[in-house]
Amino acid sequence: MPTDMPQPAFVLVRPQMGENIGAAARAMWNFGLDRMRVVAPRDGWPSEKAVAMSSGAGRLLDEALLTDDLAGALADCHFTLATTARPRDLTKPVYTPEAAMREARDRIAQGQRVAVIFGPERAGLENEDIAQANAIVSVPVNPAFASLNLAQCVLLCAYEWRRIQDDTAPVVQALAGTEPAETHEIEHLARHYEERMNEAGFFFPETKAEAMKVNLRNMWSRMPLTRADVQMLHGMMRQIVRWKERGGR
Amino acid sequence: MPTDMPQPAFVLVRPQMGENIGAAARAMWNFGLDRMRVVAPRDGWPSEKAVAMSSGAGRLLDEALLTDDLAGALADCHFTLATTARPRDLTKPVYTPEAAMREARDRIAQGQRVAVIFGPERAGLENEDIAQANAIVSVPVNPAFASLNLAQCVLLCAYEWRRIQDDTAPVVQALAGTEPAETHEIEHLARHYEERMNEAGFFFPETKAEAMKVNLRNMWSRMPLTRADVQMLHGMMRQIVRWKERGGR
Repeated sequence: MPTDMPQPAFVLVRPQMGENIGAAARAMWNFGLDRMRVVAPRDGWPSEKAVAMSSGAGRLLDEALLTDDLAGALADCHFTLATTARPRDLTKPVYTPEAAMREARDRIAQGQRVAVIFGPERAGLENEDIAQANAIVSVPVNPAFASLNLAQCVLLCAYEWRRIQDDTAPVVQALAGTEPAETHEIEHLARHYEERMNEAGFFFPETKAEAMKVNLRNMWSRMPLTRADVQMLHGMMRQIVRWKERGGR
Repeated sequence: MPTDMPQPAFVLVRPQMGENIGAAARAMWNFGLDRMRVVAPRDGWPSEKAVAMSSGAGRLLDEALLTDDLAGALADCHFTLATTARPRDLTKPVYTPEAAMREARDRIAQGQRVAVIFGPERAGLENEDIAQANAIVSVPVNPAFASLNLAQCVLLCAYEWRRIQDDTAPVVQALAGTEPAETHEIEHLARHYEERMNEAGFFFPETKAEAMKVNLRNMWSRMPLTRADVQMLHGMMRQIVRWKERGGR
């Protein structure tokens, strides 16, 4: 049984070695976190090596949500933080682990569901993964030497989560009368716009199309959209299509 | 050459596996710490396994002070912090890693030399070791599950050392490499969308038109748009108008 302590989900994206999944589970449970999600583990699931390495924290693996893709793992979340070693130019806010866990705590206190995503061991998260997140977490390591492994990155985030629980919680008010959109709603909106803009010939030239799509997705995921905003944006695009079909009359 | 950044020495007491000594060196250097001391390593010194594991942080091993006993390693220090998993009744102050690194920082700023000592992998520090320290550091782990290994304990202390150096720094970095749009740019964007959506017949029925326009303007002004976002949004709308004018061809 998972603990009922409100907490973020930690999502391992395409992890390679089972041992590292087990070590990540132990790192989490050291600080009382027990909501793991696993996206497309390279060597299949369940993983004997993960179980062997997780000793004492095996329950996290048994209860982990397994999904085929990142969108599936984030579907019910309102806010996603992506861990990266080097914040690239991704036009998202970059948080320290401390600031990230404070943001997570405040959002969770307002009833939101928060995810922290971690990339595969060697390469880290792809730009397409980061495009699905709202903000970036970067551990301020020595610029001359950054060698954190997956479990260490999980450990530092879990440690910060635990550490900031002891601060007095700042009072943050939710946007009056508005509900934040969930990740699957943002995903659906992003797809709707991408499809229509594709039909409209926006992603041109071909060589730049992928980068343009990533930019657009980054923009949607970075915006603090409410459910009402999402409905309005869908409605705008549907009306534009009707306008076009009338030939501008 | 060691860095000249003032810092505590990290002392590994009777470490067993060379791999763990190498991993501890890497954990330290991730956060810019490079003063290691090693007391009576079980498998001798230098250690090939430590070197192999330390890749990129091997200098810390080359420069490490090797001693036969803990007293020798602490001889020039003014203040020693002993890490323990479970603070036993040792009648010493017990610090969190954060409080311990603040204490270390303050003493170092006064010209003192500070050591943080870490015990062997399985058993941790003996009471006789702790007796040589001035205070205890204990990581606040899950009471039901404490499984930090040596390098992880070193990592968390090094991380806290680094973190508290920036205490006064803002916790959230600006959007990496992007400029926020100015108000007049948002205003221009809002007008562009309002005009086109008006032509498209979006603000309907008439009785609701004003409220819909206010909602849309509120949305634009609430979003943390960058200049690049604003250009993309203008470009999308211009492309939609071309699409309409082609009659959807």
